[in-house]
Amino acid sequence: MRQKLALMIDFEKALEIILSKTQNLNSVENVPLSESIGRILAQDVISDINMPPFRKTAVDGYACRKIDLTNPLQVIGTIAAGTFPKSEILPNTCMKIMTGAPIPIGADYVIPVEDTSTNNEGKVLLTGKISRSNICELGEDIKSGNIAIKAGTQIQPKHIAIMAALGCHNPQVNVKPNIAILPTGDELVEPTQKPIGGQIRNSNGHQLIAQVSEAYCIPNYFGIIRDTKQSTYDALKKALDENDVVLLTGGVSMGDFDYVPEIMEELGIQIHFDSIAVQPGKPTTFGTKGNKLIFGLPGNPVSSFIQFEFLVKPAIQKLTGSTSNSNLTLKLPLEVTYTRKRTERLAIIPAQITSNQTALPIEYHGSAHIFALNNANAVIFIPKGVSSIEKGDLVDVRQI
Amino acid sequence: MRQKLALMIDFEKALEIILSKTQNLNSVENVPLSESIGRILAQDVISDINMPPFRKTAVDGYACRKIDLTNPLQVIGTIAAGTFPKSEILPNTCMKIMTGAPIPIGADYVIPVEDTSTNNEGKVLLTGKISRSNICELGEDIKSGNIAIKAGTQIQPKHIAIMAALGCHNPQVNVKPNIAILPTGDELVEPTQKPIGGQIRNSNGHQLIAQVSEAYCIPNYFGIIRDTKQSTYDALKKALDENDVVLLTGGVSMGDFDYVPEIMEELGIQIHFDSIAVQPGKPTTFGTKGNKLIFGLPGNPVSSFIQFEFLVKPAIQKLTGSTSNSNLTLKLPLEVTYTRKRTERLAIIPAQITSNQTALPIEYHGSAHIFALNNANAVIFIPKGVSSIEKGDLVDVRQI
Repeated sequence: MRQKLALMIDFEKALEIILSKTQNLNSVENVPLSESIGRILAQDVISDINMPPFRKTAVDGYACRKIDLTNPLQVIGTIAAGTFPKSEILPNTCMKIMTGAPIPIGADYVIPVEDTSTNNEGKVLLTGKISRSNICELGEDIKSGNIAIKAGTQIQPKHIAIMAALGCHNPQVNVKPNIAILPTGDELVEPTQKPIGGQIRNSNGHQLIAQVSEAYCIPNYFGIIRDTKQSTYDALKKALDENDVVLLTGGVSMGDFDYVPEIMEELGIQIHFDSIAVQPGKPTTFGTKGNKLIFGLPGNPVSSFIQFEFLVKPAIQKLTGSTSNSNLTLKLPLEVTYTRKRTERLAIIPAQITSNQTALPIEYHGSAHIFALNNANAVIFIPKGVSSIEKGDLVDVRQI
Repeated sequence: MRQKLALMIDFEKALEIILSKTQNLNSVENVPLSESIGRILAQDVISDINMPPFRKTAVDGYACRKIDLTNPLQVIGTIAAGTFPKSEILPNTCMKIMTGAPIPIGADYVIPVEDTSTNNEGKVLLTGKISRSNICELGEDIKSGNIAIKAGTQIQPKHIAIMAALGCHNPQVNVKPNIAILPTGDELVEPTQKPIGGQIRNSNGHQLIAQVSEAYCIPNYFGIIRDTKQSTYDALKKALDENDVVLLTGGVSMGDFDYVPEIMEELGIQIHFDSIAVQPGKPTTFGTKGNKLIFGLPGNPVSSFIQFEFLVKPAIQKLTGSTSNSNLTLKLPLEVTYTRKRTERLAIIPAQITSNQTALPIEYHGSAHIFALNNANAVIFIPKGVSSIEKGDLVDVRQI
């Protein structure tokens, strides 16, 4: 059997190595606003206008002078949103005004309609209390030329309103990385087939397609790669030629039929590590060839899921120039006491964030136990060297 | 001006009314696994196999009998993943075995390869400690016929591995609701145009398209509806005929040109409320016609964003039969003391969850201030009647 590179490296060190080898793809394209969700802005969104673009009312009501508020006010016109007032407010007059409409010259106050009554001469009276002006000042939200959204931001629905408001209808974004997915193993059959004998269905290949799509990248699925040197070599070579990132699953532990590390070397891939002090995910391998990243992920779907989320995703984010932190680490009290025997690895265990805001580990038989993730909405990080954590102690939790 | 229906109703009451009027669409389709992300399962995913389907090893190593562990073991064969062993383990023998491969008859233990050495007769010796068996038992994760994932689950990447493993390659899911988006207002121009005079760009229409897409529904954009009774009537009628949900924005406050509530009544829409004690979002209107839901959202993009997230989305989830709770309420300490003068409404304010896991309100000029959401990753709920919350006190926070 092939010798491993070296001792297990720490998970944090593995992530640091991956990020140090990852460069922004630096390739951009313009996309319509409606297709920009999830993409990473390649340039700042600059405001081409003042917002608000004019002094406007925040409420439906009557625009007037604050010093006249104690007098009956004669209504001298109506201002709809989208139209500019033709006359100005003179003493003891007002104009009916609709939310968002421009404030007429002379006015410094808008009486909300619900705080008024009309007297028998048709004049408007303030019935409520005098409060703030209800006027939005020109440019109070943003001034023309200012940066509204920074390059590197992942575009979410909340950014769309800003971009639409500023006329950024065809934003420049970083291209989506192409990510090859190569599940390996003679024992695998596709989900459409019923496994016989020692076969199992290919589950993590399809899981990775879904994870890659959800990360707003392009998944290129290569199908199941059989356990021969030639087919592994051919598939990996093609995948490397055509993609920015290659994800292999299986074939990276110490079995006799695990050709992958050997072939990676033959293809000129520099292997940076092949074992991480993490559970699940110990036999995770990482290599580079030029700017291309190659991950050998374990064949077990829970390992592959977790290592994609916490090692591959940060690399993808760096490839696309993303500065958004998509996954918050929470510190939550443990719902039950946790103990383990072996402590030489960081453990990442499926968990549920309860309604009491505690972290509850979920029944989990190990890295092949894909059903454990079904009811998990988070994972708990149990640090290396720690064998037990008391109920109520704070642990690091990340949502999945 | 049109009279409002009644007094403001509480936000919780508004949500309760909406959900009481919302029925599951009860229409299903089958989609390929690769297109199933975000969809709501219409039927339970049942396991058609035992998982694992046979006793298998969790590690690379040597399958043997536990009682022989203190003796040198003769290697009598190799078992690759996907192949079944042809012979059985006799006393003081072992078989080399690869992760995932079936356990040979007679074996009750697998020695991990890293815990072995080979003597000069080629026999295998245990060098490490005796631990657990490293064997995964048949059906220990799930048994054939058991429910793996329940109907009503929103399919996420973590479910894909399970569905793939069980052969559920074409899952039955609930159809995506069709959601019409009708921004109204003479002052609006599309983002491609530069606003002149009192015009502003249509921002919340595009924001809603993005929100609807991100909620895995079908957005049907009707373009800007002008402020005439006829165009509003025609657009709303067509939208109602062709969609499950209609989202109007603007036109629902008390201005003279706000025809929407009147037209809703003319079209036979029953209006259930038209004012909520919430800030932003007070003039939110909700009506139904048969099973169709009609929301009149405020014209300000922050109001429209927030009311979509917290009122429309729960309704959409019910339409699709979703039982997944996609948005967790966290209780976090306030980073700074918060005070306000008027307390007659629930306030939903943009905030940031800091790295110290506190909730920090973000500078916010009111519901037209779309830039406030740019740096927000959450909102804080300040209950009705509460005028001040001390730094460090717990508040309800939801991520956006």
